[in-house]
Amino acid sequence: MAINTKVEADHNAPEITKILAEFVANHPSNGWHPSVDHEAHRTFLNWLGCGIGACQHESVIASIAAMQEFSPAQQASLLGRIERIDMAGAALINGISSHTFDFDDTHLKTIIHPAGPVASALLALAEHTQASGRQVLDALILGIDVACRIGNAMYPNHYDRGWHITGSTGSVGAAAACARLLGLNVIQTQMAIGIAASQPIGFREQFGTMTKPFHPGGAARAGLTSALLAKHGFTASPTALEAPRGMIQSISTKFDWSEITTELGQRFEISFNTYKPFACGIVIHPSIDACVQLRNQGVTVDNLERLELRVHSLVLELTGKKTPRDGLEGKFSVYHGCAAGIVFGCAAEDEFHDDIVNRPDMVALRAKVLATVDDTIDEAAADVTAYLKDGQKLHVRVERAIGSLENPMTDKHLEAKFEGLSNPILGQSQTRQLIQTCWDLKNQPHLEQLLKLATKSSL
Amino acid sequence: MAINTKVEADHNAPEITKILAEFVANHPSNGWHPSVDHEAHRTFLNWLGCGIGACQHESVIASIAAMQEFSPAQQASLLGRIERIDMAGAALINGISSHTFDFDDTHLKTIIHPAGPVASALLALAEHTQASGRQVLDALILGIDVACRIGNAMYPNHYDRGWHITGSTGSVGAAAACARLLGLNVIQTQMAIGIAASQPIGFREQFGTMTKPFHPGGAARAGLTSALLAKHGFTASPTALEAPRGMIQSISTKFDWSEITTELGQRFEISFNTYKPFACGIVIHPSIDACVQLRNQGVTVDNLERLELRVHSLVLELTGKKTPRDGLEGKFSVYHGCAAGIVFGCAAEDEFHDDIVNRPDMVALRAKVLATVDDTIDEAAADVTAYLKDGQKLHVRVERAIGSLENPMTDKHLEAKFEGLSNPILGQSQTRQLIQTCWDLKNQPHLEQLLKLATKSSL
Repeated sequence: MAINTKVEADHNAPEITKILAEFVANHPSNGWHPSVDHEAHRTFLNWLGCGIGACQHESVIASIAAMQEFSPAQQASLLGRIERIDMAGAALINGISSHTFDFDDTHLKTIIHPAGPVASALLALAEHTQASGRQVLDALILGIDVACRIGNAMYPNHYDRGWHITGSTGSVGAAAACARLLGLNVIQTQMAIGIAASQPIGFREQFGTMTKPFHPGGAARAGLTSALLAKHGFTASPTALEAPRGMIQSISTKFDWSEITTELGQRFEISFNTYKPFACGIVIHPSIDACVQLRNQGVTVDNLERLELRVHSLVLELTGKKTPRDGLEGKFSVYHGCAAGIVFGCAAEDEFHDDIVNRPDMVALRAKVLATVDDTIDEAAADVTAYLKDGQKLHVRVERAIGSLENPMTDKHLEAKFEGLSNPILGQSQTRQLIQTCWDLKNQPHLEQLLKLATKSSL
Repeated sequence: MAINTKVEADHNAPEITKILAEFVANHPSNGWHPSVDHEAHRTFLNWLGCGIGACQHESVIASIAAMQEFSPAQQASLLGRIERIDMAGAALINGISSHTFDFDDTHLKTIIHPAGPVASALLALAEHTQASGRQVLDALILGIDVACRIGNAMYPNHYDRGWHITGSTGSVGAAAACARLLGLNVIQTQMAIGIAASQPIGFREQFGTMTKPFHPGGAARAGLTSALLAKHGFTASPTALEAPRGMIQSISTKFDWSEITTELGQRFEISFNTYKPFACGIVIHPSIDACVQLRNQGVTVDNLERLELRVHSLVLELTGKKTPRDGLEGKFSVYHGCAAGIVFGCAAEDEFHDDIVNRPDMVALRAKVLATVDDTIDEAAADVTAYLKDGQKLHVRVERAIGSLENPMTDKHLEAKFEGLSNPILGQSQTRQLIQTCWDLKNQPHLEQLLKLATKSSL
């Protein structure tokens, strides 16, 4: 039995549900700096690639099979696939798919992966209602703002307690986004947020199972459903988020309301979104980044004698597997990450396949990596020296890895990542057209072309 | 900002998820005392009546309209209605409908309303899979056992924190029930419970809005979906319920595992289920009960001079409205409850309609009621004395009201309650046949006849 702790209720919270509803319903279209709008395009592109890339994963196959039991209408597209199902099912499955590789976006302040719930709900709804690209972008920016601000208010206590914060805040973010796309008024939007506030989804114990990506998927479906219920007059508490027995006070012991209200409509949380260049835990990223740089300086599996890696102790604690046996173990091996950087110049999902992990050159290269702990080096940094057979010595120190907020992936990096995910599914030509259509999203009159390019043709 | 409280995690919890999965998958059909099976029939009958009775309420209309946006397949019946929709939508809407009048069942130890989530999921699935009545009853008893035992483990801390315990435990109960009905094996059942463990639904702040009945509905849909995902190979943590970052430890500060494991398969929580005779808060029930008894002794609105009511202070604190103005206020008026008992001999949903509350004879009768506080009287009791115009004095003291565990509604009472709910919707003849079919549920080869009787004909 645990200790019975009492949390002091806050009976004087500001009217967060109403404030967010007014913001979502009334904020002008494109009412932000062009950099915010560009970040929304990047967020959308990155999310779309992750969804397409994982579309043949067993978690997606299983969830499609389950949803087919409902004989759904063919309302909405599934990324990378031929099948069409109803909007609610598509929101769920695209949400699952886009988070399956753990390769999607990260709002670093809260570790929320915001696009999964919000974009998955929006895409399904927008296809059905024939919304414009501009409307989708507006709703995406506003929905992500709602989710991340609620996350800011609760983090870290809420996360520490056990909640997967992507799914718990995602239902509300998706509801806000769908309410915006549907053009609901303030009261209806308040109700949509309120209905979604009863549906936070997911616990960290599920990490490593298919239920982890279910969390953004379930949140997308919950948000979409909540907005549609509100549209038809369904009611919820107007203070569902902030009341003493409402969502936030029930699932967190920290509730810093100012995180929700400060600079609302001026600062947009999507500006702090980041994208993973490598399909593994964030602590290995600086080491891989350094090895890619060494590769670009001429280091190869053949000319390398040994690689000396100095990292913070946390890196080896979390990812110290010297001889991984399969792809999943490879994701927890900084040695494998370094080898991928040298051999391939990248570490996407492909570089963590079982057969790559067991390839002789990779095994040989991992054996050449000597890792030592140095806690004077930051957790987000790595110091790597390559000793070549010809006596040369090359040194790279990465203070902020590619993909961090300080050293973001460029648009070209994002395109390359997208191609890596999408080319094997949709082919190079279709992938290239899809990328161009994504960058042009704000000008697209509807999503028809984008969705045609993001799915397999049934012909 | 609230105090940052730390809850000590329990790293040595028994394997609750596995234990419950083995129980649900392996417990023999009809493996309990006949009284348990009879209670399951009573639970089912009571739930069905509540669902039929509320089928024209605006919350049901709104939720059907929202679900129709998905152009759902016509897989499953909606209680009392003509429309058919897909299984997931039917689970949601029948769950909403059955809890809309707050007139359904109560597991008193936890205040869980267990049938809403479990029976709503089962009915939709059973119709589609053509399951037998016996299979439905087995799954209902086991699913309710899972939900209520998890509730026992967390109550009261979990409820005090803000959670609507019906929806938070209901997802898991519904998943267990559907897993049983689908014939899933132990591992699949463990996964179904695990997926549902990421979907606890609902906060108490929503009480008084449509989102309150959404909680059992959403839980029914979540449970059904979880079982279908597990059937198709979707995975979850095998310790999703009990792990330090699993469901129970994340949403409660009390986790008494013995409540889940003790006498599992011997004691069935459905045995402790109760049914409300009156469509209002439980504290008024003893007073209404007493007044119905006085009516049966000859008291009428015409021969009554005054009614002296002695009750615990809590009763007047919660339900002390002397002059209610509408039906909703009537539910918070012990005076109106007494008047309904004298005038109608009952206090079902009809007796709380606006026009009844404002009828002259009801207004006159409420004026004759004199309520006084006496804290020597138990909260669950009432002491009522009627002084008649001819000088007669009649006294009734109710120690345990009709509908309590000690003084349960008889089968005849349940039938009368059902008729009150169903007659206006389905008519007397169909209602009577439906009641007979419910009592015979264990012998029904499938639910076709029952569902035909529980819905409106489209002809």
